[in-house]
Amino acid sequence: MKRVGILTSGGDCQGLNSAIRGVAKGLYNKFAKDEIEIYGIMDGYRGLICGEYRKMEKNEFSGILTRGGTILGTSRQPFKLMRVVDENSVDKVKAMKDNYEKLKLDCLVILGGNGTQKTANLLREEGLNVVSLPKTIDNDLWGTDMTFGFQSAVDIATNVIDCIHTTATSHGRVFIIELMGHKAGWLALHAGIAGGADVILIPEIPYDIKKVIKVVKSRNKEGKNFSIIAVAEGAMSKEIAKMKKKERKEALANIKPSVAYKIAEEVEQATGQETRVAVPGHIQRGGSPCPYDRMLSTRFGVAAAQLIIDENYGNMVALVNNEIVPVPLSEIAGKLKTVPTDSPIIQNARDLGISFGD
Amino acid sequence: MKRVGILTSGGDCQGLNSAIRGVAKGLYNKFAKDEIEIYGIMDGYRGLICGEYRKMEKNEFSGILTRGGTILGTSRQPFKLMRVVDENSVDKVKAMKDNYEKLKLDCLVILGGNGTQKTANLLREEGLNVVSLPKTIDNDLWGTDMTFGFQSAVDIATNVIDCIHTTATSHGRVFIIELMGHKAGWLALHAGIAGGADVILIPEIPYDIKKVIKVVKSRNKEGKNFSIIAVAEGAMSKEIAKMKKKERKEALANIKPSVAYKIAEEVEQATGQETRVAVPGHIQRGGSPCPYDRMLSTRFGVAAAQLIIDENYGNMVALVNNEIVPVPLSEIAGKLKTVPTDSPIIQNARDLGISFGD
Amino acid sequence: MKRVGILTSGGDCQGLNSAIRGVAKGLYNKFAKDEIEIYGIMDGYRGLICGEYRKMEKNEFSGILTRGGTILGTSRQPFKLMRVVDENSVDKVKAMKDNYEKLKLDCLVILGGNGTQKTANLLREEGLNVVSLPKTIDNDLWGTDMTFGFQSAVDIATNVIDCIHTTATSHGRVFIIELMGHKAGWLALHAGIAGGADVILIPEIPYDIKKVIKVVKSRNKEGKNFSIIAVAEGAMSKEIAKMKKKERKEALANIKPSVAYKIAEEVEQATGQETRVAVPGHIQRGGSPCPYDRMLSTRFGVAAAQLIIDENYGNMVALVNNEIVPVPLSEIAGKLKTVPTDSPIIQNARDLGISFGD
Amino acid sequence: MKRVGILTSGGDCQGLNSAIRGVAKGLYNKFAKDEIEIYGIMDGYRGLICGEYRKMEKNEFSGILTRGGTILGTSRQPFKLMRVVDENSVDKVKAMKDNYEKLKLDCLVILGGNGTQKTANLLREEGLNVVSLPKTIDNDLWGTDMTFGFQSAVDIATNVIDCIHTTATSHGRVFIIELMGHKAGWLALHAGIAGGADVILIPEIPYDIKKVIKVVKSRNKEGKNFSIIAVAEGAMSKEIAKMKKKERKEALANIKPSVAYKIAEEVEQATGQETRVAVPGHIQRGGSPCPYDRMLSTRFGVAAAQLIIDENYGNMVALVNNEIVPVPLSEIAGKLKTVPTDSPIIQNARDLGISFGD
Repeated sequence: MKRVGILTSGGDCQGLNSAIRGVAKGLYNKFAKDEIEIYGIMDGYRGLICGEYRKMEKNEFSGILTRGGTILGTSRQPFKLMRVVDENSVDKVKAMKDNYEKLKLDCLVILGGNGTQKTANLLREEGLNVVSLPKTIDNDLWGTDMTFGFQSAVDIATNVIDCIHTTATSHGRVFIIELMGHKAGWLALHAGIAGGADVILIPEIPYDIKKVIKVVKSRNKEGKNFSIIAVAEGAMSKEIAKMKKKERKEALANIKPSVAYKIAEEVEQATGQETRVAVPGHIQRGGSPCPYDRMLSTRFGVAAAQLIIDENYGNMVALVNNEIVPVPLSEIAGKLKTVPTDSPIIQNARDLGISFGD
Repeated sequence: MKRVGILTSGGDCQGLNSAIRGVAKGLYNKFAKDEIEIYGIMDGYRGLICGEYRKMEKNEFSGILTRGGTILGTSRQPFKLMRVVDENSVDKVKAMKDNYEKLKLDCLVILGGNGTQKTANLLREEGLNVVSLPKTIDNDLWGTDMTFGFQSAVDIATNVIDCIHTTATSHGRVFIIELMGHKAGWLALHAGIAGGADVILIPEIPYDIKKVIKVVKSRNKEGKNFSIIAVAEGAMSKEIAKMKKKERKEALANIKPSVAYKIAEEVEQATGQETRVAVPGHIQRGGSPCPYDRMLSTRFGVAAAQLIIDENYGNMVALVNNEIVPVPLSEIAGKLKTVPTDSPIIQNARDLGISFGD
Repeated sequence: MKRVGILTSGGDCQGLNSAIRGVAKGLYNKFAKDEIEIYGIMDGYRGLICGEYRKMEKNEFSGILTRGGTILGTSRQPFKLMRVVDENSVDKVKAMKDNYEKLKLDCLVILGGNGTQKTANLLREEGLNVVSLPKTIDNDLWGTDMTFGFQSAVDIATNVIDCIHTTATSHGRVFIIELMGHKAGWLALHAGIAGGADVILIPEIPYDIKKVIKVVKSRNKEGKNFSIIAVAEGAMSKEIAKMKKKERKEALANIKPSVAYKIAEEVEQATGQETRVAVPGHIQRGGSPCPYDRMLSTRFGVAAAQLIIDENYGNMVALVNNEIVPVPLSEIAGKLKTVPTDSPIIQNARDLGISFGD
Repeated sequence: MKRVGILTSGGDCQGLNSAIRGVAKGLYNKFAKDEIEIYGIMDGYRGLICGEYRKMEKNEFSGILTRGGTILGTSRQPFKLMRVVDENSVDKVKAMKDNYEKLKLDCLVILGGNGTQKTANLLREEGLNVVSLPKTIDNDLWGTDMTFGFQSAVDIATNVIDCIHTTATSHGRVFIIELMGHKAGWLALHAGIAGGADVILIPEIPYDIKKVIKVVKSRNKEGKNFSIIAVAEGAMSKEIAKMKKKERKEALANIKPSVAYKIAEEVEQATGQETRVAVPGHIQRGGSPCPYDRMLSTRFGVAAAQLIIDENYGNMVALVNNEIVPVPLSEIAGKLKTVPTDSPIIQNARDLGISFGD
């Protein structure tokens, strides 16, 4: 008899349910019905801390392949949402271990992004059997070429750029489209190229607003009356990038409502051209996963099941050079995968004539 | 020889190009090649004022059925964008008449929303031959059951609600989704019902925030941990609705960044539940027209061509009880079609359990 | 206490679940929890004949607004699928009445197309309380301006034409796209116009293949190297249309695999141009309902609930001049709503330059 | 001065225009306006043979990123479409060389699939400077991990399966969905997994119909009344696979209209369950490229431009382990990349419970 717990933690994204389904189908396919029990831990680590879980039936994993979000619920900061337990009086890690013991789990499957992987590694260090899956629309997880959720977000963000394109050309406007990505610019980079943006601003390459303005002006000279600027929400100017950490944090906090509006103001002032902002926001992480993500998350799920079958714990499943492999949590936890400034994708984009404002 | 001018004015929307194509194909189908000349007036009324236009070739109207925006360009306030002419020194109406004469037009086809129709009627009064088409994602044009652009915007807005739904359920959040519609709530009403919103707030029905909060709380009691609130950008509270015009204007201007954020704050404070805002913005008017709008705008276009053929000027083409008919511009110009508070759609929504916050 | 049964019958389509949800929400919103019981009858009339049904829980109607198909199951010919009961030994009508009595139903809600409405009327004549809803992608139900499922099918069919368009132009081909519609051409007509078809062939307007060929040739002369022909599956040539009923039936049965292939062969032979066939088939009735259909079916559902509340039985809910009204089943059962050959839509299409092959 | 010709050959697919745009933008970005001339060769190799080409303007490459098909036209078998030149009297290779010389090209950029690459290699051997790009929805090109067009086709095919799913469950049917792929099963494999198929049949793994039937029956026993079978058009039974080449060819030709219908017949007969066939056909290669393909094809295009800049001829650009690299045409021409039967994807699918009918 195997007893496996599953939880999804952090911001939700497309592909969580298909990954969960992959884990479950992978296990049910291997074990006889009475040899496997799967427990759904509710709302991420919160459920593990507070002991909120339930035994899942096999059929609960059917029909969820195409469904967005997570059937298990999720939470970002476990304690903000907690009403039962007093944050200060609880040893969260102990609570999680206790519930793991109480449930007599053989393994805990954890789906999440950077923060989640860090906690997963902590639980591993505490002696829990853990297998994790890389979920995030930001694609910023160290150790894997690709996370699920990313391509679906790229699809939505690109579609947003497509929609804005027709308005921008009709009105002869500059549009600043702010896409998700606080620390890593993968989403803005991919959607920007796929959507035909003229400028792409990402956290990894601090921008000079004069360079951005120059692009808009030079397009006008060529007779192109509109410009599309894709901006990651974490993009920052060279001035701010040069600041010390504390000052920078303050400077970023002072940009309101967000960087896209600041850039819009500066561009409009300098060029006299109507400039508008679009912030698609949460829709980037919602809705049905795209086929690419269904495939990837399903494969990740099945691979996780295989690791459980092999009792090969302490790993995150990852895509490395087109192969799905386990990577030790100890090696990847807490590490961020940002866009290398000498990335071939960046170079391709530059060769295409796209400006990064630098 | 017929000489016909076409212009698109006001905010762009889906279906402008398919309507333009409908007008052009309707004319080319009737007249021999050397009997018809079509002039594209650039960027709305601005082009007519400044004399910016060009003779169109037949093939320019091919392949544009599915394209968003307008191939003719558009502008909202003709003079903001004008750099050539001094606003104060120009008699705009005279300039438009002069260019109409100069081009020896038999008729001017005008595609636009409320403001545009008003100007179209003015030109009619000045003796110009005018045929207009009802374009707006707001569906707030008097005289027609439906405007093109509306259903496409409903499709996009509904899709946004669908995407948000999966995030809302996964995180157990309240989401306030702000949809376009300053004066009329048609878009929020349709998308709200189609997207399964729990509360719909529209300008026509001032809301009581306590009623909104009550819905969220009562859903929580029923075990539903999320709520979706669709809000038209022009929605207002009962307090504000009661104010005199000037005060109200001020009060509305003080709500920042927008009504959705205010409601979110109030709901979160009262319920303790995580509450988020989504503002899809300009994407609601962008991208390819949906098939419904392609059909409607094409038919409107052909009908406009027929009016030109019949020399039946001074009308807007309209959909009335499933038939496409001309309605005199004099009867509809300057009138707004808002959602009647006793509309059967409102009643259906109430019977379904949707709250309007009243 | 009200006891209401619901069944969906005939080919499935988009909007069935949203209509079911509308009925249920409309009832739950009116009656206290212990005053209403809803029974789901499985797989259409078959379930009523064989006594297969179950009491539904309120939460089963949540989350189904966007789901394609029907949660109740459906069947076309009740007895083909039946394995328990011997077709010949059963009085089907008696069996249905018996189960209706056994369940002590106050009303039976029936969702279906033409055949379904006919049976619904039969049950009404037998004394059962019946309320029906007009479901079909064919839009061929007498008594209503619109059926749900239709616009979703138009969206899919138009998207198919869009996809084919790019291939047709790239290869310089003629494409025959066969759309659903055995007796009525609404779907081919709407999708054909929305998709920019050059020729539309529908059952209501028998075609002359020479006229079709002439269009293709004349387009080639104009320098357009491709043509798109949208064909309803029930389209027929003038020769066949002139035949007597029996001969015609045989002639139609001999066209294999389908009319689109026959036309393709004739066009290719006459023009020498590469000609291909696309038959989207069942996808036209699958997937999530479009927002228009979600709105319409939801409103139909709520209106049906209202009829039950008012004990106003024996009607189908219908859309007439934008209003949702009951129409007596006795007046509409067995009647087909085909495209009038003098329909304004047909005229608009002709004015646009579209050929109907006549 | 650089003079570059571009042609697209073989069946069209998504991403051709975005790749063409990538090549052009990459060249225009590097060379001054009067240092580069790009010639569009019409309709694939046919244009090169017959001398049909035209000098392209820079702006012709704008606005085509999202457009399906190819602005240059394409053809499969150059001579079927040729009306000017007599097939037998022409030395095609000589004609191509002559036109290459006549145009004084520095390089010819060729976009195409397997057949196209073979011819590209032939031209290279004849001394022409050639750079090629891997285009095909089949993903069956040796030397690259991915071709553009493939993911867009997967998206469409998966969407087809999604649509069919709702009909299959509602009616309790078996559905056989025939997807493109004569020699390689990549598309059916990816779409099958992404769409939740129960059985996937591909050319690389001959099937035993008894095994397929067993899956359907065993699903019925588990209470699942529907089954989805994704079939590549080149799938074949073990009996046929065992035949000698000539016999096999005949046997395959005798399966009419196609393998899906044969399987449907066998399944329906053996299980008594309603079984239907869906053949999406050409729509799999039509419409706008998905963001993944826009990215990939754009990068391929820019990389091809770079090879021209570097005068590094005789290569196809390829994606190998996430990097875009040149691979010598001599090494890949004429080689097919089929799905390895021990592919990890196949293994993942088996672990998930998917049957390959073997």
